[in-house]
Amino acid sequence: MSTPKILILGAGYGGLLTTLKLQKKLNYNEAEITLVNKHNYHYITTWLHEPAAGTASADHARVSLDQIIDMNKVNFVKGTVQSIQPDEQTVTLENGEVLSYDYLVIGLGSEPETFGIQGLKEYAFSIRSINAVRQIREHIEYMFAKYKNEPERTDYLTFVVGGAGFTGIEFCGELADRVPELCREFDVDPELVKIYCIEAAPTALPGFDPELVSYAMDVLGRKGVEFKIGTPIKECTADGVLLATGEEIKSKTVVWAAGVRGNSIVEKSGFEVMRGRVKVDEYLRAPGYENVFVVGDCALIFNAEGRPYPPTAQIAVQEGENLGDNLVALIRGEVMQPFVPALQGTLASLGKGEGIGMVGSKKLFGSTAALMKKASDLRYLWKIGGVGLAMKKVRL
Amino acid sequence: MSTPKILILGAGYGGLLTTLKLQKKLNYNEAEITLVNKHNYHYITTWLHEPAAGTASADHARVSLDQIIDMNKVNFVKGTVQSIQPDEQTVTLENGEVLSYDYLVIGLGSEPETFGIQGLKEYAFSIRSINAVRQIREHIEYMFAKYKNEPERTDYLTFVVGGAGFTGIEFCGELADRVPELCREFDVDPELVKIYCIEAAPTALPGFDPELVSYAMDVLGRKGVEFKIGTPIKECTADGVLLATGEEIKSKTVVWAAGVRGNSIVEKSGFEVMRGRVKVDEYLRAPGYENVFVVGDCALIFNAEGRPYPPTAQIAVQEGENLGDNLVALIRGEVMQPFVPALQGTLASLGKGEGIGMVGSKKLFGSTAALMKKASDLRYLWKIGGVGLAMKKVRL
Repeated sequence: MSTPKILILGAGYGGLLTTLKLQKKLNYNEAEITLVNKHNYHYITTWLHEPAAGTASADHARVSLDQIIDMNKVNFVKGTVQSIQPDEQTVTLENGEVLSYDYLVIGLGSEPETFGIQGLKEYAFSIRSINAVRQIREHIEYMFAKYKNEPERTDYLTFVVGGAGFTGIEFCGELADRVPELCREFDVDPELVKIYCIEAAPTALPGFDPELVSYAMDVLGRKGVEFKIGTPIKECTADGVLLATGEEIKSKTVVWAAGVRGNSIVEKSGFEVMRGRVKVDEYLRAPGYENVFVVGDCALIFNAEGRPYPPTAQIAVQEGENLGDNLVALIRGEVMQPFVPALQGTLASLGKGEGIGMVGSKKLFGSTAALMKKASDLRYLWKIGGVGLAMKKVRL
Repeated sequence: MSTPKILILGAGYGGLLTTLKLQKKLNYNEAEITLVNKHNYHYITTWLHEPAAGTASADHARVSLDQIIDMNKVNFVKGTVQSIQPDEQTVTLENGEVLSYDYLVIGLGSEPETFGIQGLKEYAFSIRSINAVRQIREHIEYMFAKYKNEPERTDYLTFVVGGAGFTGIEFCGELADRVPELCREFDVDPELVKIYCIEAAPTALPGFDPELVSYAMDVLGRKGVEFKIGTPIKECTADGVLLATGEEIKSKTVVWAAGVRGNSIVEKSGFEVMRGRVKVDEYLRAPGYENVFVVGDCALIFNAEGRPYPPTAQIAVQEGENLGDNLVALIRGEVMQPFVPALQGTLASLGKGEGIGMVGSKKLFGSTAALMKKASDLRYLWKIGGVGLAMKKVRL
């Protein structure tokens, strides 16, 4: 009997946690574990709004995989997945390499959901990867530098954030913190800089407690963010955005943060999806395949009321851990445990020292929320890289 | 008898030194001194290649005017000159303000000389001001960030420097020093980054000692700069440069550093010019006007062999000091002293700790030249702002 091959696609929250569980629990000869990832690092997606605004370096939001993965136990392949052939039990990479598996873990993450709005793909940035956020940061700085050479172009100083969900709100908080620094560096009058946060839904942070929403909008409003709520974006162009109201906002910097869908590779590979996400069973299996598991933003799971859980880091981490345990069980002929999310709360930063959150039924505001967010980040880093990584990355 | 009005246009080397001499020598009621400048700072033009490459901050290369000008003695006007009417003894600013004078000092600096090469004005950067070099630095960083999102676009990593004179060579040295840092920051393979230095003349640093030229090219060559000497640029486009040889270099970053001409306002105001420079007499007076003086890059003076002196900071400083003294003499009814340049040597940096230079007939190389350059910078800063400014700005 040959050693079973476990192939994990993606080293995001879901794929990484699956890998770490397997690495910890399995003995050397129990399985052949392969992890495929585009980069040789894992990034902390929930921190990306910081390097995007330039309030932290991009390096700060990533961890080199060789720091956390035991390369003796895990075969790491740096590559980009092109397609999955579940019936042949193979995966093809962009470089033509074909990998076969007995068990497959799909953790390929998300892509921006543009809801069919024209021009977003071509003209808007999104906070989706280390490379993407480095470009956003450099683009913003470049706009300040360009403005100083074309002082009639105040549109260079207008920044549009599409979406007032978590990512949009957190990015607005960081950007508002960065603007005064940029104004000092480039001798720009802060009055000329505009940050618009535009949301189609009738409220910012839809689904969140109204008192917290109002606190968040108040904090950001005082930092200079102008909200346009209940205002869909109709089109994004090279010159800015057209709103459904007919208003045009001239801007060279539109950051789209209004939602994600599952990686399109999953759909292209023939899996049935809703918004790119595979509706998985209680063991995170894709319909029709006993040996294909989906975690993170590509997986769709429902709560007791039949509503889908939003794609969050928290759930992806729990899925990865559950799946890692279940793969060990499968290999050892033991019983799998169904996945049950344990929601521990929600925390959003609003820039330096400010935040909001719900932990259980308790509302958190200001520095308390900001501190709890740090604690939660610390816990995650400790989990994946031990106390050393946690101390190195979390700045209290 | 009314107090004579001295109007100084530009706070570059020439205008600033004139102002400082007047401020030092004249009593409060001897003259009404007005200094007009676009910005409220003086910048050290000979350092601009550093912030352009990003090896130093732009702030480092400028000095706030209120640190060095006694605002009780000098009336400072922040404004941009639009035209000079020498027959009416007035100067018009872009905001419409009209200033009158008894004595005028034109120190309006230079503009890039494009020699009629198509596309340079539209597509090339030039190292000409604080705002311009901030844009160059941000543009370079943006190219690295963009490349990581479009890895087929290696042209983003190609940098073309037009001109292997002092500015071109010094910028190449800094850029070559910066590239490894940028490669580390953006995870870019240094092998992909190209720096071309293109010069139409048959040698780099035309007119300089051949042994020093060869040393400079060797140092920069080892840092990765590729020279194309005796190779005129035919055209600059949005996609790069076309060389006279027929070769095309694809690049989004062309920095034109192949020469300057006097500010076009001077010619537009009716003064007779050669390449934008006014051929002044021995007292730096414009032909036909006893009360109009020209200093710095707008002034053209000839050596004993009838060859024009190149427009350098060194000569501008000496002109400013001479003119300051002469204006004091004029006001007091004393005799003016003719301007005689005292060339003290030439020094060029080749990046960190490297340089070349001639001091008298002595050739300087490497760290000795770099140190002499620091000493010369220190001397200048001491002159304009005292020991405090010198210690603050010069990093030994």
